[in-house]
Amino acid sequence: MTSIDLNADLGEGFGRWQLTDDERLLSVVTSANVACGFHAGDAATMRRVCERAAELGVRIGAQVSYRDLAGFGRRAMDVPPAELAAEVAYQIGALEVFARAAGTRVSYVKPHGALYNRVVHDAEQACAVVDGVRLADASLPVLGLPGSRLLELAAEAGLPAVTEAFADRAYTAEGTLVPRGQEGAVVTDPEVVVERSVGLARLGTVTSHSGARVDVRARSLCLHGDTPGAVELARRVRERLQESGVRVEAFA
Amino acid sequence: MTSIDLNADLGEGFGRWQLTDDERLLSVVTSANVACGFHAGDAATMRRVCERAAELGVRIGAQVSYRDLAGFGRRAMDVPPAELAAEVAYQIGALEVFARAAGTRVSYVKPHGALYNRVVHDAEQACAVVDGVRLADASLPVLGLPGSRLLELAAEAGLPAVTEAFADRAYTAEGTLVPRGQEGAVVTDPEVVVERSVGLARLGTVTSHSGARVDVRARSLCLHGDTPGAVELARRVRERLQESGVRVEAFA
Amino acid sequence: MTSIDLNADLGEGFGRWQLTDDERLLSVVTSANVACGFHAGDAATMRRVCERAAELGVRIGAQVSYRDLAGFGRRAMDVPPAELAAEVAYQIGALEVFARAAGTRVSYVKPHGALYNRVVHDAEQACAVVDGVRLADASLPVLGLPGSRLLELAAEAGLPAVTEAFADRAYTAEGTLVPRGQEGAVVTDPEVVVERSVGLARLGTVTSHSGARVDVRARSLCLHGDTPGAVELARRVRERLQESGVRVEAFA
Amino acid sequence: MTSIDLNADLGEGFGRWQLTDDERLLSVVTSANVACGFHAGDAATMRRVCERAAELGVRIGAQVSYRDLAGFGRRAMDVPPAELAAEVAYQIGALEVFARAAGTRVSYVKPHGALYNRVVHDAEQACAVVDGVRLADASLPVLGLPGSRLLELAAEAGLPAVTEAFADRAYTAEGTLVPRGQEGAVVTDPEVVVERSVGLARLGTVTSHSGARVDVRARSLCLHGDTPGAVELARRVRERLQESGVRVEAFA
Repeated sequence: MTSIDLNADLGEGFGRWQLTDDERLLSVVTSANVACGFHAGDAATMRRVCERAAELGVRIGAQVSYRDLAGFGRRAMDVPPAELAAEVAYQIGALEVFARAAGTRVSYVKPHGALYNRVVHDAEQACAVVDGVRLADASLPVLGLPGSRLLELAAEAGLPAVTEAFADRAYTAEGTLVPRGQEGAVVTDPEVVVERSVGLARLGTVTSHSGARVDVRARSLCLHGDTPGAVELARRVRERLQESGVRVEAFA
Repeated sequence: MTSIDLNADLGEGFGRWQLTDDERLLSVVTSANVACGFHAGDAATMRRVCERAAELGVRIGAQVSYRDLAGFGRRAMDVPPAELAAEVAYQIGALEVFARAAGTRVSYVKPHGALYNRVVHDAEQACAVVDGVRLADASLPVLGLPGSRLLELAAEAGLPAVTEAFADRAYTAEGTLVPRGQEGAVVTDPEVVVERSVGLARLGTVTSHSGARVDVRARSLCLHGDTPGAVELARRVRERLQESGVRVEAFA
Repeated sequence: MTSIDLNADLGEGFGRWQLTDDERLLSVVTSANVACGFHAGDAATMRRVCERAAELGVRIGAQVSYRDLAGFGRRAMDVPPAELAAEVAYQIGALEVFARAAGTRVSYVKPHGALYNRVVHDAEQACAVVDGVRLADASLPVLGLPGSRLLELAAEAGLPAVTEAFADRAYTAEGTLVPRGQEGAVVTDPEVVVERSVGLARLGTVTSHSGARVDVRARSLCLHGDTPGAVELARRVRERLQESGVRVEAFA
Repeated sequence: MTSIDLNADLGEGFGRWQLTDDERLLSVVTSANVACGFHAGDAATMRRVCERAAELGVRIGAQVSYRDLAGFGRRAMDVPPAELAAEVAYQIGALEVFARAAGTRVSYVKPHGALYNRVVHDAEQACAVVDGVRLADASLPVLGLPGSRLLELAAEAGLPAVTEAFADRAYTAEGTLVPRGQEGAVVTDPEVVVERSVGLARLGTVTSHSGARVDVRARSLCLHGDTPGAVELARRVRERLQESGVRVEAFA
């Protein structure tokens, strides 16, 4: 039986500010990318999200970022590799304390925002992220884009490399994401998102924006939780996957 | 044979800014209170200090603080207990990752600056610090002032409570510190500091500012490293202790 | 004809995070307390709020705070007076650049959160705030609680001291606010809030929580904008004031 | 008579941390690039530096930066133009309050670190900096590298564009700086730095690293103050310039 992991960003508030609907998202996903304080996520929120994730059996991942609260980690930064590696490890360690206190562990790492995009192509920063992960735990899986430098370098370093796909993003005929900003880059029709999710999970394919069927092998689907209706859509995706005979569970 | 631990604050730079002479201090102390990023201490510095401490066999402690880079953690803050506990745990976890990577562990916790002073009397914040330590590790020793609420509550919670004394601070006849700002609060004559160190370690006594001998039982002496001549003085203290037959070693 | 100023906190988002409904609030209030970056408020938001306030003829005030994004300025801090004064001036100057660019000026200063509460009683910090305001502009009005040390010291220093009242907070028979946390401290019935607003504006009185009528002379009413329904309630307050023959306009 | 301006970065401490020897540097330079809090520079330091600069008749400039205390503004960031412009204006406004309080004004703007380097080539960010300066004051000079996009766009926007040169940096035969990291990029012999300063000021020329004489027209020389011996070298540069008949004074 086919299975798929569902991951989403959680705990992306900071102090007084809320963003993600953590409680409801945790009832949908199997893997929670928890913000670790560098782009979002204060210590009390991290603790609460870890406790609730542990209760619900949702896997906890460290959503590591550039140090950039003002820019929500969305501004690419030329961080020297040694600093970046240490900052990645710092964030994983900080989250680990709450995961352990909740009776579980940090089970994977996923870069956030500008860092996520940068390590698709930038080998130096990708290597720094891998170094940071290994500092924290040399057996920790890394979640990222198929074909990214990050996953290549993670695999070379002996870290499990876990691929993810986006049901709400357009793909090129080569299986890469259509860049945000280009027309049609984001799929907005909920029903289409649901159908693409099922296709990605069952067949490992998706229809490109030019109409061709392309292979996108992914062990996890990334759901978004920070827009109106996002949680409801995530729930529909999960239900439809299950109705289609896909087992929704954290990646092995 | 009498033994004493020597502790000092380390890693208190931040990015471009340096403060403590970490390399030289690590050759003197037996316990390093490493700044964890809230009042000082960036991730790369934390990593470097942990690596060097591990090489030299110096014990690593988490020097936890209010979140206050601008004030260097010296401004008392009314942080709600749940937030403070989570922030303490966050800092310990972040440091732990570098201690483990260096082949060792965070072995104790010591509050910094305004938080250190606050938890002498403030039971609510002291309790929050203890909660934060226990979140991270329910067997972690806490280093603080004899008679402080922090050590009382730590002991009640089952955490080892480790007392420390200051050879360069004046004591009252009751064995408490003469508050900074009062005349004579700080002992500046290096030779007097050295002699007081020996007295504290060998006899557990110190001469109060009124001239009386008072009992100050401490398992660790706190040395300062952020002033000119401080490292040299620390070295003299260590040498004189050893010449006096005191074994300088980390607390058990 | 009686007149009253309506003030509210605005621009209290930060980067990705939104909090106050600035656009709608600006259509209700006559004075906008704009966050200046220390507890909330990024530069782009400050610019946008100032531009819109200027278009609508809403007066711009600097909502100055402790430096505490993580705590939203709600954690009292023992900031040394010289630092606090400089930080207050810094915030006013930063906002002034956007007010001027929008063709207007910063027209008053109001402390936020924990600083607001602290300077009711704490003469040292109140004096520091006054010093900071005078550094920026020795003719700038200060908005605060009647009877507060802040307004006393502002008046002594030659700054216009402007009093404000809260229609949604309970008052004691002595005319002071019932502390938050005590039962009944916050008035939640919208209709009661509206009626109290009219009473405060027309008669300068309010019914205390013990049922007595007490004098509360205020030149401004503070409206809240960060809770569901808050903007709608603010609009009703404004309409009812106008229907009652009160002119709603910025304080002279 | 030939004249030259001498500028240096000042006020680059933060809270507990010191970096630049502000007092001594202010006795040498004619223009002080004061850090505004984004890469360094707390409010109390900004105030003190402005007061002392005003006393000594040293011109005050805003040294604006990316928001990056952890990286000291040395990490290039992809800040969206509207955010960058607002952040530049914010910093200028914050400094202006202290300049005015000291009886003077912010008289120019100079980008710091990674932003300085970025706006040499990056038209979008250069334009954002110019927009930010104009938001603050449409007549404010901008200090930068000859031939940089920043100075081109500043001039197009009607802002005075002031060129600077570096006596301690190697130049190519085309008159551009040899990138840091290349061999010989930094001139370390003090006597050579002094001689190059005189050549730059009197003749507008400098010997390139290939030995050719190249034209480098600059109205200001940038001196460094954050390394051992730097202030002493700066003083020698100033003295030798004056002995050579060059008038050392702020640019017109």
